[in-house]
Amino acid sequence: MTVFSKMGKVFTFGYRDAICEIVEGRGSIASVGTLVGKERNVLAVTDSGVPIQYAESVIAQFSNASLLIIPQGEESKNFNTLEVIISALMQQGIDRYGALIAVGGGMTGDIAGFAASCYKRGIDFYNVPTTLLAQVDASIGGKTALNFGNIKNMVGTFHHPKGVVIDTETLKTLDSRHFYSGLAEVIKMAATSDADLFAMLESDKPLMEVLDKIVAAALHIKCDVVLKDPLEQGLRKVLNFGHTIGHAIEVVSNGKLTHGESIAAGMTYFCSDEMRQRLEKILKRYHLPVKSPFTGDILLPFISQDKKCNNGLITTVYVESPGTYEFRKMTPEEIADLISIS
Amino acid sequence: MTVFSKMGKVFTFGYRDAICEIVEGRGSIASVGTLVGKERNVLAVTDSGVPIQYAESVIAQFSNASLLIIPQGEESKNFNTLEVIISALMQQGIDRYGALIAVGGGMTGDIAGFAASCYKRGIDFYNVPTTLLAQVDASIGGKTALNFGNIKNMVGTFHHPKGVVIDTETLKTLDSRHFYSGLAEVIKMAATSDADLFAMLESDKPLMEVLDKIVAAALHIKCDVVLKDPLEQGLRKVLNFGHTIGHAIEVVSNGKLTHGESIAAGMTYFCSDEMRQRLEKILKRYHLPVKSPFTGDILLPFISQDKKCNNGLITTVYVESPGTYEFRKMTPEEIADLISIS
Repeated sequence: MTVFSKMGKVFTFGYRDAICEIVEGRGSIASVGTLVGKERNVLAVTDSGVPIQYAESVIAQFSNASLLIIPQGEESKNFNTLEVIISALMQQGIDRYGALIAVGGGMTGDIAGFAASCYKRGIDFYNVPTTLLAQVDASIGGKTALNFGNIKNMVGTFHHPKGVVIDTETLKTLDSRHFYSGLAEVIKMAATSDADLFAMLESDKPLMEVLDKIVAAALHIKCDVVLKDPLEQGLRKVLNFGHTIGHAIEVVSNGKLTHGESIAAGMTYFCSDEMRQRLEKILKRYHLPVKSPFTGDILLPFISQDKKCNNGLITTVYVESPGTYEFRKMTPEEIADLISIS
Repeated sequence: MTVFSKMGKVFTFGYRDAICEIVEGRGSIASVGTLVGKERNVLAVTDSGVPIQYAESVIAQFSNASLLIIPQGEESKNFNTLEVIISALMQQGIDRYGALIAVGGGMTGDIAGFAASCYKRGIDFYNVPTTLLAQVDASIGGKTALNFGNIKNMVGTFHHPKGVVIDTETLKTLDSRHFYSGLAEVIKMAATSDADLFAMLESDKPLMEVLDKIVAAALHIKCDVVLKDPLEQGLRKVLNFGHTIGHAIEVVSNGKLTHGESIAAGMTYFCSDEMRQRLEKILKRYHLPVKSPFTGDILLPFISQDKKCNNGLITTVYVESPGTYEFRKMTPEEIADLISIS
């Protein structure tokens, strides 16, 4: 049912009848046209915070493509932007055989992916993530989303991209704050699933020297987990390490903290003492917060709204030592208490 | 991969990991609670045109259920209503293990099904269709939708219901116009796929005497086609007989013609002469239109917007004699010409 074959720097990632082709490596953005098919009718969507040259270099590879620029920022991930994207797809005359390509970070991929999943009941979606966060995490796994009623990712679908192009060259234009935010997801994956990667992050090697290795390692953890649990019914919950409190922090901060900063702050409450110390050392090194700026009382209502809450219990991820994890079911109140007592 | 087993009046209908349980027969609305699970947290959605007793009898079977009433009519099938339903799901505190139950016609099932497919990335959806159209057609197959930019079903997903309860008793409160509209879909299915059913519709037997037989026969055609082609990649297009022109008529009529009346009017252009005469006889008997009230010129822009249009060609369904069909690829202009020359 699933295949996972590596072909040099290109590997495919299959789930049911959906095969996701992942192209990884410096300069790979030039291969988007070949991957999608240069003759196809496409709409590219980027956001105003992404250097425009990336999306322009993508559409230049097609004979019939147009570009939509949506405003940057999490506040664009709403029904209004969804309607704007769908209108642009109609305007471009995209039929069921056309494609939508997202060029940008997690926000753009989430909302554009949702549009692709429901426009004419689903068209092909390709993702060209240009942030570290999106490259190692958000672009893989088929989760699409928009925010609603003050709840992050309240509405969305599972719609696997047909292809993902991960060009680490694009990280050069990423500001350091967002770079470190993306690194928070890498640290998260290393903590639960890859002791070697965790050691690499702890080492004194300059980050830029090992960047390609780090991206590849994190990407493979993500693919491996998603392949084993495509619909997030079990194992995939490991990726939620730090997210239970982190999502609540992100909402309450109201845009002041990034997703990565928020989940960094949410991780340390679910660790052994020794693990917490090692984790905090890495987080501090990359200018990431190590604890919640808000009290448990303030976060509680937002923790209770967790999508994974089942009959009042949330499955949290606890880490004893790097590369290991266990699931612990807790009430929202117990989770909020972790903050108050720490 | 798929099973199709009949267990008395209950049969299951499986597709991938989704099993749809269909309960068919008079009085079966009383079994909704048992089918869904009486202890689950549920939201029922009905519309203002449906006798309220049906939805009330459904929620009375649960210990924790609330009811949302949306305005009747195709104009409710929009993003605004979607947001209203999602807000109601949040208000009821539905988590991923809760369920949404639609009680009503095709409009309610389409928009509620879409809400269920994207609320928290998908929750269980159950359908209790109370119109003939929804019982024999719309409730089976997992198509969800809303209208956008003046195009019917422009946005939607495939999300199979976990269960469908088809209680033919509810048809007693359906006004004759909507009853005949639903019959148009039965006639459509008989024309392409069941010569015996077509003969039954041609016979002089009072319709009410054979109603349960007709519903069961149409339902089984629909299930059979959907099982063979769940994502509408080929065979399932047979169900679009009459719909290419019909959808355009429905949009241009702007609510004056029902879906069934519109597709009835759209069928006769895709028949042999003999078939057309037999079809028109049945349509007239049930007070359904036999031709488009609009010219091809007026319909053309809406035919061009057909979701199934691929590189300028639409796959239409042509019927030579009852129970047979062939696919014919045509341009929107050729289709519009059929109206002008007939």
